Amino acid sequence: MMDVPLTVGMIMRHGTTVHGDSEVLTWTGGGARRTSYAQVGRRAAQLAGALRGLGVTGDQRVATFQWNNQEHLEAYLAIPAMGAVVHTLNLRLASDQVAWIANHAEDDVVIVDGSLVPLLARALPEMKTVRHVIVVGRADTSGAVGRADTQVDITGIDTIELDGAGKQLHSYHELLADQPEDFDWPTDIDERSAAAMCYTSGTTGNPKGVLYSHRSAYLHSMCVCTGEVAALTPADRILPVVPMFHASAWGLPYAALMSGASLVMPDRFVQAEPLVRLIEAQRPTVAAAVPTIWGAVLRHLRERGGDMSSIRQVLCGGSAVPLALIKAFSEERGVEIKQAWGMTETSPIGSVATPPVSAQGDEVWRYRAGAGRLVAGVEGRIVDDGDVVLPCDGTSVGEIQVRGPWVTARYYRADAGEEDSAGFHNGWLRTGDVGTIDELGFITISDRAKDVIKSGGEWISSVRLENLLMGHPKVVEAAVVAIPDDKWTERPLATVVIAGGEQISAAELRDHLSASVPTWQLPERWSFVPEIPKTSVGKFDKKLIRARYANGELDVFEQY
Amino acid sequence: MMDVPLTVGMIMRHGTTVHGDSEVLTWTGGGARRTSYAQVGRRAAQLAGALRGLGVTGDQRVATFQWNNQEHLEAYLAIPAMGAVVHTLNLRLASDQVAWIANHAEDDVVIVDGSLVPLLARALPEMKTVRHVIVVGRADTSGAVGRADTQVDITGIDTIELDGAGKQLHSYHELLADQPEDFDWPTDIDERSAAAMCYTSGTTGNPKGVLYSHRSAYLHSMCVCTGEVAALTPADRILPVVPMFHASAWGLPYAALMSGASLVMPDRFVQAEPLVRLIEAQRPTVAAAVPTIWGAVLRHLRERGGDMSSIRQVLCGGSAVPLALIKAFSEERGVEIKQAWGMTETSPIGSVATPPVSAQGDEVWRYRAGAGRLVAGVEGRIVDDGDVVLPCDGTSVGEIQVRGPWVTARYYRADAGEEDSAGFHNGWLRTGDVGTIDELGFITISDRAKDVIKSGGEWISSVRLENLLMGHPKVVEAAVVAIPDDKWTERPLATVVIAGGEQISAAELRDHLSASVPTWQLPERWSFVPEIPKTSVGKFDKKLIRARYANGELDVFEQY
Repeated sequence: MMDVPLTVGMIMRHGTTVHGDSEVLTWTGGGARRTSYAQVGRRAAQLAGALRGLGVTGDQRVATFQWNNQEHLEAYLAIPAMGAVVHTLNLRLASDQVAWIANHAEDDVVIVDGSLVPLLARALPEMKTVRHVIVVGRADTSGAVGRADTQVDITGIDTIELDGAGKQLHSYHELLADQPEDFDWPTDIDERSAAAMCYTSGTTGNPKGVLYSHRSAYLHSMCVCTGEVAALTPADRILPVVPMFHASAWGLPYAALMSGASLVMPDRFVQAEPLVRLIEAQRPTVAAAVPTIWGAVLRHLRERGGDMSSIRQVLCGGSAVPLALIKAFSEERGVEIKQAWGMTETSPIGSVATPPVSAQGDEVWRYRAGAGRLVAGVEGRIVDDGDVVLPCDGTSVGEIQVRGPWVTARYYRADAGEEDSAGFHNGWLRTGDVGTIDELGFITISDRAKDVIKSGGEWISSVRLENLLMGHPKVVEAAVVAIPDDKWTERPLATVVIAGGEQISAAELRDHLSASVPTWQLPERWSFVPEIPKTSVGKFDKKLIRARYANGELDVFEQY
Repeated sequence: MMDVPLTVGMIMRHGTTVHGDSEVLTWTGGGARRTSYAQVGRRAAQLAGALRGLGVTGDQRVATFQWNNQEHLEAYLAIPAMGAVVHTLNLRLASDQVAWIANHAEDDVVIVDGSLVPLLARALPEMKTVRHVIVVGRADTSGAVGRADTQVDITGIDTIELDGAGKQLHSYHELLADQPEDFDWPTDIDERSAAAMCYTSGTTGNPKGVLYSHRSAYLHSMCVCTGEVAALTPADRILPVVPMFHASAWGLPYAALMSGASLVMPDRFVQAEPLVRLIEAQRPTVAAAVPTIWGAVLRHLRERGGDMSSIRQVLCGGSAVPLALIKAFSEERGVEIKQAWGMTETSPIGSVATPPVSAQGDEVWRYRAGAGRLVAGVEGRIVDDGDVVLPCDGTSVGEIQVRGPWVTARYYRADAGEEDSAGFHNGWLRTGDVGTIDELGFITISDRAKDVIKSGGEWISSVRLENLLMGHPKVVEAAVVAIPDDKWTERPLATVVIAGGEQISAAELRDHLSASVPTWQLPERWSFVPEIPKTSVGKFDKKLIRARYANGELDVFEQY
């Protein structure tokens, strides 16, 4: 067989020629900018030319600080296809973390959306390796770039000396306008070389860098295109609400180019109200976001209505998807929410919650509320605290470990031995998720290892309690965390957001839970809060909840 | 990323564990034998143990001479997963060709279906390298194995000395029964090593061996699972009528294990009447066969009726699919025939005829009747006689050349330089098909290079004339070949099969054609025949038609 490497360049070549008539559309709030994949291919060539002109060579890192939009897609294609590495910086992180990450990755260039210039400006002075900043569109210079000499509208200005350290500021559009619409793409890229990188948000310790190879990006894209995951075709229009800085928007942009599905990009408009308007106007067939977004969309739909009929499938993951949310979308809107499980380290698709054909009645809901069945390419196992591999029998509980061609083998420049060895075990990735795998590869996650509640020698699943609480019609969100307990070591604390205009007591919620869990698992401590704090990727920030509890910042009721 | 090789073993492990509840069903004419993928996994382990016991090591070739059934699937999994090469022998070839191929491949073992023992027996004495023959089920020994001492029912007999050359005969089931249900599968298989092999039928010259690597089998299976090709899920039931000795049944068995789709195996019952009964009884959702099979099924349905409602998609290829057939299935049965193009050398999927989203009305039919759009992973180009690459503009005609990770780079043990160089050009496969590729990767094939009719310096497409003729309601089949002509070098001869009970004249058929093609392309010579001769893989045998014409064996009318 031919030795044809699996590369992002191959995805780009296919998508921008064979599917040159598919389109990427960027939402502008009330309307949309549109262009064809063929045109995106020409602009990617211009971007590659521009970056080469700025001196980007080899596997240098070019960072992006961008929304989900056309220009971010151009960076996704051009940078890996020219042999460099596209490094998606997380907009939601604190500026010191952004700078730390850019320095760790040794980013050479940053492409930044004009609207995000003020945000980047806070981190930029601390970015030691960045030589060039390329601004897409009109820069919001309200507090821009932290230097007096850049407090200007850069439109119409080619290059501005940014600071004494030699950083230069460029206009994306002018930089590209000077370049030819073709580029001498390298053809000898090793499929195992790095194409993209993404840092995990790191709720403990420093952020950790995951390098996606050309091979892993290609194989993961094929996986996303399969019937089991999204069955993408050119007739699809994909709405990736999940940010492109979060595990490559779950691989959807590359999968779109591979399948010819069009992309409907939300840009910065990722709140419930503009999303519903975008969906009504642009009629995507597939949409992807974390559960908190879909929860907000559901509330919006219930209050103000809206048409979701174009959507044949919602992909949902990033944290456990409440069964109540899946049921509500199905029963109220006829929309299927398909839960997927994975993490930055798994590219991210690891499993997809399609029930087995034989499932009947409530079983179907149970499977759809679980983390799903391992996809072809990803293998899983259960390992206990003593590193003993347990059977995949659906009852043995331990850490879930996975391996596969799109699972990371190590972190980028990890401190020798330390974090790296903690994350891996004999060629398997330690996911940090605790749960079971059954004979048919269905994963049930009871907790993040660090969120497990260890009560009197037994484990209580915070995820299960949260799901049951969020299944109550008067509860909007609920997070359950472990708090220290003299007698039991740890006990659960339930923090609950009650729906607007409703009232409910801790006693009633305990009653509600007691129908499904044994008495010893029922939380004794309750806190009603206006909202659950979230991490930069929209997950419950349990570390912060525990800290607030420890600091006495929460009003806590006791209820036995 | 982890360096996890893409292997058939990985497909097997996934399919027989995560999809252990899916099933393979083998039709027995009136009923079915069924078993689960989990059980197939255990039997594959037993088969690997048995083969190892017979001394199969390294990359030795184990041939199969079998129908599409459970045991053939076991061979598909066990042989590559143990590191050997499964070589599918074509049942339809003459026995001297079968022997030539087995000798060229240096097959060590042959697994043969009991019903095929008499057929294999004719080739077996000439097979020089075969040491062991394993018979599945009860051997038909009516003329068996060509040796007096094997004229016995082998059931209940472990091993029989077959001939003086040391060949031994074994019972498949007894050989497996002695083996444990697990096997120490090797984990260090190079994904670029050979997993399977298949010889092209070779209408010119000797058959040519194509080696499929583990990598190509894996990637091709993923391609088959994508939305663009078959969008397979565990809810599917695949009926591969296309033989497993013909380009791995278009990759469907491996794709089934990868996706968890169940397999409905027709065994030897591949004629229209038993196929319709099988479809009614076992309700497959996806079915795959060459156009002649579907043509026969359509005639059967029209005459006797039948229920095809379970089928959501028919995959059809191997030769051009007549538009009339696609329309009839759509309009009379509500069944979508999806045309695919490829060849043994392309694993075989190269393109799939899904119309672009923008196509309207008759355009849709035109696209569906074409060879389709290049799938992700396969790149195509058009090259003229002088090796000049022509534009993909939908009008420049030349040879179609392709490349990709599941396209063969060379033939197995090809005679140095000769046939090999004829089949390849600078890293591209010369497909031998002549036609165009348009801007969106849609291929239109006007002919096999060797079947092109060169008339007065212009080319006439035999495929187009055939399609138009077969679109006439009174025509069952039509093959158009080039015959020598003093004035024009070559002219078309049309050989036509008229539907039973119908009558039509050459003049009427010329009139019918003249609505669509210029006058100079209309055939002057016509022959009405009871059937079109076919090759071993069901394609029109144009070489034989030309020979019969040259020998004066055809009744030819002239009609101007």
